[in-house]
Amino acid sequence: MLNFEYKNPTKVIFGQGQIAKLSAEIPRNSKILMLYGGGSIRNNGIYDEVKNALDGFRVHEFGGIPANPEYEVLVEALAYIREHQIDFLLAVGGGSVIDGTKFLAAAALYNGAEPWDILQKSIHTAEGEALPFGTVLTIPATGSEMNSGFVVSRRSTNEKLSTGGPGLFPQFSILDPNVVRSLPKRQVANGIADAYAHVLEQYMTFPTTATLQERFMESIFQTLQEVAPKVMAEEFDYDAAANFMWSCTMALNGLVSKGLLTDWAVHSMGHELTAHFGIDHARTLAIVAPSHYRYFFENKKEKLAQYAERVWNITDGTVDEKAEKAIQKLVDFFQSLGIQTRLSDYTDAYAGTAEKVEKAFTDRNWKGLGEHKKLTPQDAAKIIEMSY
Amino acid sequence: MLNFEYKNPTKVIFGQGQIAKLSAEIPRNSKILMLYGGGSIRNNGIYDEVKNALDGFRVHEFGGIPANPEYEVLVEALAYIREHQIDFLLAVGGGSVIDGTKFLAAAALYNGAEPWDILQKSIHTAEGEALPFGTVLTIPATGSEMNSGFVVSRRSTNEKLSTGGPGLFPQFSILDPNVVRSLPKRQVANGIADAYAHVLEQYMTFPTTATLQERFMESIFQTLQEVAPKVMAEEFDYDAAANFMWSCTMALNGLVSKGLLTDWAVHSMGHELTAHFGIDHARTLAIVAPSHYRYFFENKKEKLAQYAERVWNITDGTVDEKAEKAIQKLVDFFQSLGIQTRLSDYTDAYAGTAEKVEKAFTDRNWKGLGEHKKLTPQDAAKIIEMSY
Repeated sequence: MLNFEYKNPTKVIFGQGQIAKLSAEIPRNSKILMLYGGGSIRNNGIYDEVKNALDGFRVHEFGGIPANPEYEVLVEALAYIREHQIDFLLAVGGGSVIDGTKFLAAAALYNGAEPWDILQKSIHTAEGEALPFGTVLTIPATGSEMNSGFVVSRRSTNEKLSTGGPGLFPQFSILDPNVVRSLPKRQVANGIADAYAHVLEQYMTFPTTATLQERFMESIFQTLQEVAPKVMAEEFDYDAAANFMWSCTMALNGLVSKGLLTDWAVHSMGHELTAHFGIDHARTLAIVAPSHYRYFFENKKEKLAQYAERVWNITDGTVDEKAEKAIQKLVDFFQSLGIQTRLSDYTDAYAGTAEKVEKAFTDRNWKGLGEHKKLTPQDAAKIIEMSY
Repeated sequence: MLNFEYKNPTKVIFGQGQIAKLSAEIPRNSKILMLYGGGSIRNNGIYDEVKNALDGFRVHEFGGIPANPEYEVLVEALAYIREHQIDFLLAVGGGSVIDGTKFLAAAALYNGAEPWDILQKSIHTAEGEALPFGTVLTIPATGSEMNSGFVVSRRSTNEKLSTGGPGLFPQFSILDPNVVRSLPKRQVANGIADAYAHVLEQYMTFPTTATLQERFMESIFQTLQEVAPKVMAEEFDYDAAANFMWSCTMALNGLVSKGLLTDWAVHSMGHELTAHFGIDHARTLAIVAPSHYRYFFENKKEKLAQYAERVWNITDGTVDEKAEKAIQKLVDFFQSLGIQTRLSDYTDAYAGTAEKVEKAFTDRNWKGLGEHKKLTPQDAAKIIEMSY
C-alpha cells in the first residue's frame, strides 16, 4: 500500500427533513450569500425549505449559476460578495453550484489581481484562506459536497480547469435523499453513471495491495447496480435514493483511492467530447470507458477480471474471458440506464474527432495520462476512434 | 436508511517513515506531553523515532499507562499536565494509551472538582473544550486513533466507563504498519479479533436498508480474513500489516454504522468476563459472540445468512442452514487466530458466571441491550451459560 494522508472535515447531515438544521450550522450574525442554479429549487420546494430554515438570518441570493460553472458568471458573484461584505456562502444545488461556490470561497480571500490565476496557476487553497461555506445538495452525482476540488469553465478562452486544496472542504453538507424525487430521470441516470465512472477511474488499473480500498470500491459498484433500477423507476423509493446519494458522495470523497494509483484518463478524453459536441459529462464517460479498457486490455485485464468476479460474480473462464465479459457488463449497465455508449449514438458528425482530440492534447503541455502517466495523444486518438 | 450525522476531522498520516512528519503537525512553541505505556516503544525503536522527529521541541514524558487505562494513574498524569502547563498531548501507544490521553485532554480543560464526573456523568466534550492531541499508533485494534470515544477503568470502585464527544478526535494520527513487525502474535491475534468483533457488533442485526454501509462492513470482514494468516505468519508482510491496520481504523471510525441500528451486547457481556477472569478483551468477544448469535438465532438468522453468502460465499441451503454455517465459520475464524471460543478453554472456575453476570447487570440501572434494547439480564445469563 502506498503512503497516504487523509483528512476530510466536512460534517455530513444526512436524511429526511435535515434542511431544517441549517440554522444550527451557520453563525447567527453571518452575512450569507445563497447560491443556486437555474431555479429548479423554486419548483421543487427546496428554495422555500432553505429560506424557512434561515428565517432571521441575513440572506442574500445569487441565482443562475450554469452547468459547468462559468467563470464569467462567477466573476459577477464575486463582485457581489465583495460589495456586500458577504462572509458565509451557501451552495444550494448540484456539483456545478458547489464547484462555483468553492471557487468563490477561494477568490473572495485571494489577493491577486486576476482570480482566474487560482485555476490557471492551480493555486492550492490552504485552511483559513477561503470564506467558510456549506452546501445543500440537490443532485447526487459529483461528490463535490464532501471533497475539496472544483472545476470551472471559461467560455472566452475555451478552458475548463480544476484545482482545490484543504481549505475548500464544505463546513457542512446537507443531504436529503428526497431531492431525488423531483429530478428528471435523465439527471438521475447521469448521476449514477458519473459516480460509477468516478469509481472506475480509481479502480480499473491493476490489482493493487490496497485490499480494503478495492473492496470498498467494489461495494460502491454493487450498491449502485442494485439501486439503479429502483431510482430509475417511476415510483419514488426513499431507501434506494438514499443509497444512491451516499454512494455518489463516497465515490469521490477521497477515501477509496488512498494508498493506490488512479487512472482518470477517461475523464480527460470525455471532456473533449463535451467540448466538441455538448454531450452530457456522464455520457461521455460511458462512451470512452469501454474503448479505453479495450485499448489497454493487456494492462488492465487482471483488474477487469477481478471486477467481473467480485462485482458480477463471473467465476468461469480465463482471465481474458472474464475481462472481456467485464467490459460487456459495463456497457450493459450504462445501457440499462438509457445511456448509449458510442459517439455515433449522439452525433452523425463524429468523423475527425479522434484527430481533433489528438491535436488538443498535443497542443497542451502534455504530461501523460493514466495510472502510469504513459497515455499519449496518439493513444487517445485511437481510443476515441474505437468509440465512434 | 436512518438519518445520520457524520464528521471525522482526524488527519490520518499513513505509511512507512511517516513518524518523521510529526514536527509539521504540532505547533513549534507547544509544551508537549508524550504519553506511553509499559515501555515496549523503547525496545522497538518507536520511542527514538518520535524523539528524533521532535528534536527542538519541548517534550515532557509520562510513561506507564496500563492496559484498560486506570483512573488512578491518569490522575497523576493530570496533575503533571497542570503543574507543567502542558498544552499538547501526544499519545504513543495502542488503544489504552490513546483512550487515556483523550480522558486527559478533556480533564485538563474541565472545571469541575472531580474529573471522574466526566465519565460518571458521561459529559460530552465539545470542540474547543479539550487540549489538542495527536497519536502515534503502535497496536492496530481499537480504532481509537480515528474516533472520539474512550474507556477508563477505576480500580477502587471496580468501574469501567466510557464517554466521548466531538472535541475528542485526535488532530492527527500517524499509522506506520511497520509497528506490527515487533508485536507479539498474541497481540496481533487480539487486534484482528477486536476489529472483526467491532464490525460484527455493527453488522449482525437484521438486513437493513443501509446497503452501502453493509457492503463496507463485509469488505472489512473479507479483508481481515484475507490478511489474517499473513500477519500471523513469522515473516513480516508490510502490505498485509497495512491492510490489517487500516481495517482496524475503518472498523470503528464511525463511518460503517451510519444510518443503521447496532448491537454491542457482546461487548457488554465480554467486559464482565474480563472483570471476573482477566481474559483479554478481544478473546471475551470470541467467547460470547457465537452463543449470542445462537441465542438470538431467530432474530439474527437473516443477517447471518447474508454474512454467510457474501463473506464466505456459502450459497447453498436454506436461510437457517446458511445462518448455522455462518456461526461455525465465525468460530473457525477465531480459532484460526489461536483464539479459543469457550469460557472453559480459559478457566476451570466458570461455574456460576452466568448468575454473576445476571446479578451485575440487574444491579445496574438496566436499559436493555442489543439493536432493539430488549436483551435482559436473564438473556445474558443464558448466553453466558451457552458459552461455558
